[in-house]
Amino acid sequence: MDSPPEPELLSLNTATVREKWSLRQMIEGCARHRIRGISPWRDKLAEMGVKEAAKAIRDNGLTVTGLCRGGMFPAADRKARRAAIDDNLRAIDDAATLEAKCLVLVSGGLPPGSKDLAGARGMVRDGHPMYCADRACVNTLAQALDLCDELNRNGSGALGVAVDVYHVWWDPLLRAQIERAGDKRLLAFHICDWLVPTADLLTDRGMMGDGIIDLPLLRSWMEQAGYHGFHEVEILSSRNWWRRDPDEVLATCRMRHRTVC
Amino acid sequence: MDSPPEPELLSLNTATVREKWSLRQMIEGCARHRIRGISPWRDKLAEMGVKEAAKAIRDNGLTVTGLCRGGMFPAADRKARRAAIDDNLRAIDDAATLEAKCLVLVSGGLPPGSKDLAGARGMVRDGHPMYCADRACVNTLAQALDLCDELNRNGSGALGVAVDVYHVWWDPLLRAQIERAGDKRLLAFHICDWLVPTADLLTDRGMMGDGIIDLPLLRSWMEQAGYHGFHEVEILSSRNWWRRDPDEVLATCRMRHRTVC
Repeated sequence: MDSPPEPELLSLNTATVREKWSLRQMIEGCARHRIRGISPWRDKLAEMGVKEAAKAIRDNGLTVTGLCRGGMFPAADRKARRAAIDDNLRAIDDAATLEAKCLVLVSGGLPPGSKDLAGARGMVRDGHPMYCADRACVNTLAQALDLCDELNRNGSGALGVAVDVYHVWWDPLLRAQIERAGDKRLLAFHICDWLVPTADLLTDRGMMGDGIIDLPLLRSWMEQAGYHGFHEVEILSSRNWWRRDPDEVLATCRMRHRTVC
Repeated sequence: MDSPPEPELLSLNTATVREKWSLRQMIEGCARHRIRGISPWRDKLAEMGVKEAAKAIRDNGLTVTGLCRGGMFPAADRKARRAAIDDNLRAIDDAATLEAKCLVLVSGGLPPGSKDLAGARGMVRDGHPMYCADRACVNTLAQALDLCDELNRNGSGALGVAVDVYHVWWDPLLRAQIERAGDKRLLAFHICDWLVPTADLLTDRGMMGDGIIDLPLLRSWMEQAGYHGFHEVEILSSRNWWRRDPDEVLATCRMRHRTVC
């Protein structure tokens, strides 16, 4: 907790600069700013082409810390449900092509018109959710780990959680559940900050240091539990960071990572 | 779950019509719309005067289902902390004068400039929180009940929770924790709805039936756990219900209570 994080553990979740850059620009930007990890989103990946992207990432010596995203399993009818599952199978192929450390799933929420939360949670279980949930009917780390245990009893590390500080910082059981997860199930660590006030439920995340999350404390819990992987910055910020020059954003990420994380 | 709720169990949390009415108008409005319960807020109570309000409420035959609110315990320094505690002592006096069924506490969040969540939670415990938490460092029903057990071991009913559907509907442990609370600790049941999308974190609550919460299911869990008290409508809605004629709002509350709760 007292020593700053290793700079080479910084990773860029490309949502952070999604408004102004293509995936190729993101890859080259990471290399330029000596950010060693990258986590692409599938819309930009489709634009560039998966093989082309894999080559550019390899050529620049980057590690793919995650592919965003699969999931969104609950659906209103059989056809939509089948489409969601097929899309997840394609996402697994893409993740393999990119040699991604993990495929991040956002489980999905209630289907349109539904109030059946138990039913939606059942669809997520049947769809094999893997990672931590946002805008989702899997809402706590404990619940995500229960699902991991149910679907992957031997704890091989094939299923696990992406611990995103934005979603879990408030959880009274957080420290215990990170410890429970252990190194096998801790597949990713996403960082940003919770702003006060927060103006939008989805796209008003803060840069590390601008909010109220005790990032060094959370990192220390991750490390004590055996996680020594990347620290992936993911900042959805329609009002601020998305509007800035991405080179400025990346430089700020590096500086804040060193000083407040 | 199949039978509609008893109309005489409807209660009005006066925040629902706070923009246009004084407390006296709220009291008379409840009587006019045959709403038998009322839950005043302290700012309006101070305007009217506590004794005057108690008399008007009594004269109109209303039950005070709760007084909103005490709490907000975490503070940045000793002086602010002392002021918060004094304010809570006054709130207890007011609740007694009104013969309120309970005093609703909102525990409070991080003090300005602080990231010390564990410390804030300690200040809440020391301040004796009672009821469910909003914008607060007590975030789940399980955590609130743990505090109740710690501070009121004999489960006398002096401490308990206000189950506000807006705050708890997503909780994977909800049914089990309502059952755990039982009739002694279930002191209030607040209803409204969660809108999709939600435009504001605080003041975009929905009227019952306009969102995605399965209200009859949650009510059935409360009843199975032994709760047979009022159903208190609390709708903070700067964009919609606060702008309407309060008589229309109350009529809508009554109709929706009968048809979708």
